[in-house]
Amino acid sequence: PSSIRLAVIPGDGIGVEVTAEALKVLQAALPADVKVEGTEYDLGARRYHATGETLPDEVLGELKGYDAILLGAIGDPSVPSGVLERGLLLKLRFAFDHHVNLRPSRLYPGVEGPLKAAGEIDFVVVREGTEGPYTGNGGTIRQGTEHEVATEVSLNTAYGVERVVRDAFARAQARPRKKLTLVHKTNVLVFAGSLWSRVFHAVAAEFPEVATDYLHVDAATIFLATQPERFDVIVTDNLFGDILTDLAAAVTGGIGLAASGNLDVTGTFPSMFEPVHGSAPDIAGQGKADPTAAILSAALLLDHLGRTKALPGLSEAARRIEAAVETDLAERAADPTPRTTSEIGDALAAKAAG
Amino acid sequence: PSSIRLAVIPGDGIGVEVTAEALKVLQAALPADVKVEGTEYDLGARRYHATGETLPDEVLGELKGYDAILLGAIGDPSVPSGVLERGLLLKLRFAFDHHVNLRPSRLYPGVEGPLKAAGEIDFVVVREGTEGPYTGNGGTIRQGTEHEVATEVSLNTAYGVERVVRDAFARAQARPRKKLTLVHKTNVLVFAGSLWSRVFHAVAAEFPEVATDYLHVDAATIFLATQPERFDVIVTDNLFGDILTDLAAAVTGGIGLAASGNLDVTGTFPSMFEPVHGSAPDIAGQGKADPTAAILSAALLLDHLGRTKALPGLSEAARRIEAAVETDLAERAADPTPRTTSEIGDALAAKAAG
Ligand SMILES: CC(C)[C@H](C(=O)O)[C@@H](O)C(=O)O
Ligand SMILES: CC(C)[C@H](C(=O)O)[C@@H](O)C(=O)O
Repeated sequence: PSSIRLAVIPGDGIGVEVTAEALKVLQAALPADVKVEGTEYDLGARRYHATGETLPDEVLGELKGYDAILLGAIGDPSVPSGVLERGLLLKLRFAFDHHVNLRPSRLYPGVEGPLKAAGEIDFVVVREGTEGPYTGNGGTIRQGTEHEVATEVSLNTAYGVERVVRDAFARAQARPRKKLTLVHKTNVLVFAGSLWSRVFHAVAAEFPEVATDYLHVDAATIFLATQPERFDVIVTDNLFGDILTDLAAAVTGGIGLAASGNLDVTGTFPSMFEPVHGSAPDIAGQGKADPTAAILSAALLLDHLGRTKALPGLSEAARRIEAAVETDLAERAADPTPRTTSEIGDALAAKAAG
Repeated sequence: PSSIRLAVIPGDGIGVEVTAEALKVLQAALPADVKVEGTEYDLGARRYHATGETLPDEVLGELKGYDAILLGAIGDPSVPSGVLERGLLLKLRFAFDHHVNLRPSRLYPGVEGPLKAAGEIDFVVVREGTEGPYTGNGGTIRQGTEHEVATEVSLNTAYGVERVVRDAFARAQARPRKKLTLVHKTNVLVFAGSLWSRVFHAVAAEFPEVATDYLHVDAATIFLATQPERFDVIVTDNLFGDILTDLAAAVTGGIGLAASGNLDVTGTFPSMFEPVHGSAPDIAGQGKADPTAAILSAALLLDHLGRTKALPGLSEAARRIEAAVETDLAERAADPTPRTTSEIGDALAAKAAG
């Protein structure tokens, strides 16, 4: 029997609860001859308070050895803003070269989105994950004085832009509609914008079947709020992708349902899968959190390993989880009696069983 | 009789049509003893093609002498992206120190927004207009090679942040709900984020009646799509403000209704008023454009001059235009027979007459 070696980082708040359910469903969905070996890592607010550590080098070294990482959520009001985000979450994304941040948005049948008129919404955002305004470049002079100047530098490289744009084209090519929209702000951010446009058009020539499109980021938010069905695949930078995927999640029923994968598509480093939502300390520990986003993230994990590892049955397991979620969400629409986090997990595990 | 000296830049596409209606309504709304002296400036795509100029220094010098600038819309597909945006629109905003970019969002009674459940939406975004990622700082090395690196630098100064934050607090203080939300991405953009937070909290101490709040920009888009009624005043940087105000316009019925003012609140330079929408070349010249956003921008212009110039009756004229728009939009809801651009202008002029 073969096995998948997973590093599990439940993290903070509801991260702990939803990760338990994601593992439960993942295990249930796997073929009988594939085992999960999960190793839990205690990272996040508790560890930070106990030891001052966010992500020690030796832990980072160990994590490198896994097939994938399943992460719950990071962050707590007791930790200064940014410390865990940058010291743990972004550090993992950057250290493991997670250049493709994959964020599918689908309005499942039965789910109430906030928009009056929404046709079939089913698109995926390919968000660059290792460059742009997220690199921590920048600085401050004369801090705290009336002469303070603070900068943030967005770094964009041909290497970094091309690999993510190429990935997005390949994903668009593999989808029925074969449509790719570049989102940027090329008319104002001309240096980065010019690089993104040129690379986008150069790579487009290799994918003649993919229909291409460009939107300024501000206009993209209008379309997400009024015609989200027009999107198939979107490719964009780290910051725009952050903004658009939260909006996309809202439009498709909320971040309680939004899954994501942080991929190193070369397979050099383990990819990491996490719900888009945060640790929601206000409802933590009460069994109220919806584990669906974490469970769909586990499906993305299986799908990714199915493509990159020579293990049969993983993609099918991923499809089973997605189908289970689809059925479950339709059932919720029919019977909206609230269920606990683990009740939802149990129901999905039963439905996804391989 | 006193007079208002206006520089009028109709610009491109529907800019020409909507500006004519904005002037018509503005004139109708003014008290009998206040005259408008409008001087038209031919700037935009036509001039660029004819002379290669976007905004000659001598024109900039002349514009400085007016009480205010009324702008239609800039841009045409025949001009390379960014040339007019940066060479004309942003050049005006920066040259005239338009640090307060004021963008009200209101869902008028009778207007169909895209959201199912929207209570009373009535907020204003105070967007910083002279700093942040919009300064054109940045550059490119090894352009066109696989080793290209392109940067964009967001510049943020204590001086620039404080004046816009202070303006936003004053506006919040003057509104019934007295609520101000700072939007940024302080957990990732730590240098700029720290400056914005510190200044925000320092200025807050001077406005004890104003309730304050902070949202990351990604979370702000979720609230705009699901609970826009929670916002009263939002203050944010140039890029986030660009993104949020397009989304806000979508949520309140579309950019056909969204007005804006680019203010130098010190009065050193003329402030500039423009609809948030662009030149819409696809419908230009057909009398199809909705002039309401331009007309509401004219109301912002009157309101601003009413506060800064010692001319009586201007604020009242602004209120009359807004009331006229409110009535007209409710009438449209009852009778949605399409009207031409000038029919809408005529109707609003009649209703707003002083
Ligand atoms: C927590 C934060 C650093 C993170 C991001 O900005 O990428 C989050 O918003 C996300 O979208 O995963
Ligand atoms: C045209 C463009 C430069 C401009 C901006 O980004 O400010 C526009 O989107 C706006 O919001 O006024």
